[in-house]
Amino acid sequence: MAGVLTLQSLAVATGTTLRGEGGYEIYAAAPLEQAGATDISFIRDRKYVRYLADSAAGALILPPSLADEYAGNCLLSPDPYLTYAQVVGLLYPSSLPAPGIAASAVLADDVVLGEGVHIGPRVVVESGAVIGAGTVLKAGCVVGADCQVGPDNYFHANVTLAADTRTGARVILHSGVVLGADGFGFVPQPTGWYKIPQVGNVVLGDDVEVGANTTVDRAAMGSTVLGNGVKLDNLIQIGHNVQIGEHTAVAACTAIAGSVSIGRHCRIAGTCSIAGHLSIADHVTITGNSMVINAIKEPGVYSSGMPAEANAVWRKNAVRLRQLEKLNQRVKALEQQLAAQLPMQTANPCCDSDS
Amino acid sequence: MAGVLTLQSLAVATGTTLRGEGGYEIYAAAPLEQAGATDISFIRDRKYVRYLADSAAGALILPPSLADEYAGNCLLSPDPYLTYAQVVGLLYPSSLPAPGIAASAVLADDVVLGEGVHIGPRVVVESGAVIGAGTVLKAGCVVGADCQVGPDNYFHANVTLAADTRTGARVILHSGVVLGADGFGFVPQPTGWYKIPQVGNVVLGDDVEVGANTTVDRAAMGSTVLGNGVKLDNLIQIGHNVQIGEHTAVAACTAIAGSVSIGRHCRIAGTCSIAGHLSIADHVTITGNSMVINAIKEPGVYSSGMPAEANAVWRKNAVRLRQLEKLNQRVKALEQQLAAQLPMQTANPCCDSDS
Amino acid sequence: MAGVLTLQSLAVATGTTLRGEGGYEIYAAAPLEQAGATDISFIRDRKYVRYLADSAAGALILPPSLADEYAGNCLLSPDPYLTYAQVVGLLYPSSLPAPGIAASAVLADDVVLGEGVHIGPRVVVESGAVIGAGTVLKAGCVVGADCQVGPDNYFHANVTLAADTRTGARVILHSGVVLGADGFGFVPQPTGWYKIPQVGNVVLGDDVEVGANTTVDRAAMGSTVLGNGVKLDNLIQIGHNVQIGEHTAVAACTAIAGSVSIGRHCRIAGTCSIAGHLSIADHVTITGNSMVINAIKEPGVYSSGMPAEANAVWRKNAVRLRQLEKLNQRVKALEQQLAAQLPMQTANPCCDSDS
Repeated sequence: MAGVLTLQSLAVATGTTLRGEGGYEIYAAAPLEQAGATDISFIRDRKYVRYLADSAAGALILPPSLADEYAGNCLLSPDPYLTYAQVVGLLYPSSLPAPGIAASAVLADDVVLGEGVHIGPRVVVESGAVIGAGTVLKAGCVVGADCQVGPDNYFHANVTLAADTRTGARVILHSGVVLGADGFGFVPQPTGWYKIPQVGNVVLGDDVEVGANTTVDRAAMGSTVLGNGVKLDNLIQIGHNVQIGEHTAVAACTAIAGSVSIGRHCRIAGTCSIAGHLSIADHVTITGNSMVINAIKEPGVYSSGMPAEANAVWRKNAVRLRQLEKLNQRVKALEQQLAAQLPMQTANPCCDSDS
Repeated sequence: MAGVLTLQSLAVATGTTLRGEGGYEIYAAAPLEQAGATDISFIRDRKYVRYLADSAAGALILPPSLADEYAGNCLLSPDPYLTYAQVVGLLYPSSLPAPGIAASAVLADDVVLGEGVHIGPRVVVESGAVIGAGTVLKAGCVVGADCQVGPDNYFHANVTLAADTRTGARVILHSGVVLGADGFGFVPQPTGWYKIPQVGNVVLGDDVEVGANTTVDRAAMGSTVLGNGVKLDNLIQIGHNVQIGEHTAVAACTAIAGSVSIGRHCRIAGTCSIAGHLSIADHVTITGNSMVINAIKEPGVYSSGMPAEANAVWRKNAVRLRQLEKLNQRVKALEQQLAAQLPMQTANPCCDSDS
Repeated sequence: MAGVLTLQSLAVATGTTLRGEGGYEIYAAAPLEQAGATDISFIRDRKYVRYLADSAAGALILPPSLADEYAGNCLLSPDPYLTYAQVVGLLYPSSLPAPGIAASAVLADDVVLGEGVHIGPRVVVESGAVIGAGTVLKAGCVVGADCQVGPDNYFHANVTLAADTRTGARVILHSGVVLGADGFGFVPQPTGWYKIPQVGNVVLGDDVEVGANTTVDRAAMGSTVLGNGVKLDNLIQIGHNVQIGEHTAVAACTAIAGSVSIGRHCRIAGTCSIAGHLSIADHVTITGNSMVINAIKEPGVYSSGMPAEANAVWRKNAVRLRQLEKLNQRVKALEQQLAAQLPMQTANPCCDSDS
C-alpha cells in the first residue's frame, strides 16, 4: 500500500527541483496514460512530449529541457527515470522482516550468524555455513554446507544454495533459484556416460540479483562467477565455469552454456542461447532470441532470429530456407550466364556492323 | 489405479448413447492402438476411420456419424474427445487429501482459513493471508503475506506465492511454481543498475492452471493478470504487467516479456518468445518456437523458425542466411541487367532489318 | 577441498601406466593452461599437442601415442578424458551424509525405508512410498504417495516427486527438479478448456541424472520414461508420455513436447525444441537451438537456427527472410526469361547469317 507524500518532500528526498505546489499530496506513481490527480508520473525525453498536453497526472517528473512545455506541478530531474524509481521506493516503502530465528528453522550447530539476521520458518542451514549480518532468509530456503552468504542479502522463499556457494553484499535471490547444482559434465563411454565430479563452486559479487527459478551451476573446477551488479531475470541457465562481468544484465529464459565468458556492462535479452566456451566483449547488446555461436569481440548490438509472420507465408519461406544454398547457386548460374552473354553481345558483329 | 465400470454406467455418467452390451466391464482407458478387451478408447472423426477395423478395444467412443462403420460396443458422443476425458476421470477417480492442518505447518496468527482446507506438512502461510474454503496446500508450499487464495484451489508441493498474490476459484498450481517474484526492472546508471521497486502483484482468475516451475512476475505497479481459464504449461516466464485474456493456453518454455497483452482464446505453443509491450489479438494461434516482435492485430495462425535439417545442409544455408540481403541485391542487379537487355534486343536494328 | 595423492597411487587407482616420479605429489586437477607444478592435467589427442611444450603442469594424462612428445611426468591412458574424470574423483572425494532420519522430517506411517537411507531436515515422504537402501534425500525434498525410489539415489535439496513416480538405482536429482507434474492436456470447448486427467506416471531407469529445475511430466496414461543412463541438464521440459532411450543426453533449456520418442545414445544440445509425437532415431545428434518439427529416421547430425550477427546486417536479412518465397519466384522468372532468350539467340538469323 502506498503512503502519501507531498511534492516538496519528494523533491527533497530525490534531490530534484520542485516547480509548483510544494504541499500537493501524491498518493501513488503510475504510467503517464493512467496517472490521475493523486498520481505522479514521468517523461524521459522529448520523444514523448506530445503526451504532456493530455496528462491528468497530479505531477510529472521531467527533464529540465521540457520544463517550458508543461504548466503543471513537476519535479525537474536530469534523470527522470531514476527519479521515478526513487519516488516509487518512497511511496511504497518496504520493510525487512524482524531479526530472529524461526522455531521451525533447522541450523547446524556450527553455523555462524551475523547480527540482525532473519531466518524464516523451515529454513535449513547446513554445517559450516556463514550468514552475513542483516541477511534475510525467507521460508523454506536451504543453505548448503560451508556456504558463505554475505551481509544484507535477501533470499526469497524456497531458494536453494548447494555447498560452498559464496555471495557478496546486498545479493537478492528470488524464489526457486538454485545456485551450485552440478554442471553438466560427462565423459562419453561406449556403455554410456561417466560423470565428471563437479568440484568447483558458485561465487556471486555484491549487488547481484537473480530471478525466480534461475539456475547457476557450480564450476567443474574453480568457480562460476557473477560479477558485482550482475542482474539475472527468471528461468535463466548459467552453465559451469561461466564468468559474467560486472553490471551485465540478462533477461529471462536465456541459456548460457559452460565456460562462456561475458564482459562487463553487457545487455543480453531474453530467450538467447550462447554456445559453450565463447567469449563476449564488454558493452555488447544481444537482442531477444539470438543464437550466439561465435565469439563477439567488439562492442555493439548483435541479433538473429526469424520474426513471426502469417503461417501461410512462413510455410513457404521455411521451405525456401532449406533451399537457400541452392537458390544461391541458381543466382550464381544466372550471373554467369548473363556475364557470358553480355560480352558476346557487346562484340556482336552483326549489331556492331549495323551501328 | 483404475476402477471398473460398466459401459451402461459410463453412458449414463457422460450423457452419451450406449450401443452394445451395457454390462460390459471397462477397466481402463487407452490410446486406440494399445487398447485391449478391457479398455475403452475413442476416435474423434472420420480421419481415423481406417483404424476401426483393427481395433481390439473393448469399447469405443465415436461420433454418431461413424456409428455405422463399427459393429462393436460403443458410446456415441457429439464430442468423443470430451467424453474420453470424462471417462478417464470416472475410471481413475482422484480424491482430495483430508481437511486439516499438518502439525509441521507454520501459520501466522492472523491467517484466515476457509472451511475444509488441507494444509500439508511444512507449509508456511504468512501474516494476513486468506485461504479459501476447500483449498489444498500440499507439502512445502509457501503463501506470502496478505495473499488471497480462492476456494477449491490445489497447490501441489513446493509452490511459492510472494506477498499480495490473489487467485480465483479452482486454481491449480503445480510444483515449483513461483507467483509474484519481482519483475525485471532497473534504471541504467553509469555505475550499474538502479532497481525499480516492483510494488504491484499477481492476480489469477478462476480455473487457471499453471505448470511446474513456471514463473509469473508481480507487476511493477498494478497487477499482472491471468484471466479466467488461462492454462500455462511448465517452465514458462510471464513478465511483469503482462495481461493474458480468458481461456488462452500457453505451452512449455515460452517467454512472455513485460507488459505484453494477450487476447482471449489464444493458443501459444511451446518455446515461443513474445517481446515486451506487444499486443496480441483474441483467437490468435502462434506455432512452436515463434519469435514475436510485432503486434498481432488479426486472429489467425502465426509462425516463424527454421526447421532442423541435416547439419551439412544447414551449415551452408546458415552462411547464405547471413548474405540474404546481398543475395537480394544480386537478384535485383540481374533483373535490371535483363530488363536493360530485353528492350534493346527488341529494338535491335540489325535483327529487325534482317527479318 | 582436494586431497594429496602421489602419481603412483593415481596410476594404480586408474589402471594407467606411470612414467616419471611415482612419489610426485599431486594436489589438484586443472585445465592445461592453468595447471601448475602441483596440478595434474590432460590432453585428449594430437590436436592439442602444441600445448605440451608450454605446460607447467606437475603431471599430464596422455594417450600412449603422445608419450614420446612429452618428457615430464605422465600417466599414459587409452582414454585420457576418462582418466582425468577418475583422478578428479580421487583428488576431491565426496562423502555421503550419514544415515539417519532428521527430526524435522515428516514421514507417513507406512513409508518403507531401505537400509542406510539419509532423510534430511524438513523432508516429507507421503503414504505408501518406498525409499531404496542407501538413498539420500536432502533437505526439503517431497516424495509423493506411492513413489518407489530406488537404491543409492541422491536427491539434492528441494526436489519434488509427485505421486507414483519410480526411479531406478543410482539416480541423481538436482535441486528444484519436479517429476510427475500433470501433463498439459485439455479438450477445447467453446467455453474454455476441459482438463484431461493425467493418470499415468514417471519412470526413471538406473543411473539417470536430472539437472536443476528440470520438469518431467507424468503420462496422461501409462508412463513417461527416461531409460537407463539418461542425463538431463537444467531447466529442461519433458512432456507427458515422452520416451527417452538409454544413454541419451539432453542439454539445458531444451523442450521436448508430449509423446515424443527419442532413441538411444542421442545427444541433444541446449535450447532445442522437439514438437509433439515425433520419433527420433538412435545415435542422433541435434545441435544447439534446433527446431525439430519432423521425425528423424537416420542417425546423424541435425541442425537449424540463424547465427547472430551485427544488428544492422540482421535487420536487413530479417526483412529478406520474409520475402524468401518471393525471391525464389523472382529467380525463377529470371531463369525462364534467360532460358527463353538463349534459344532465340542461338537461332538468331541476323547473327547466324553474318557469321
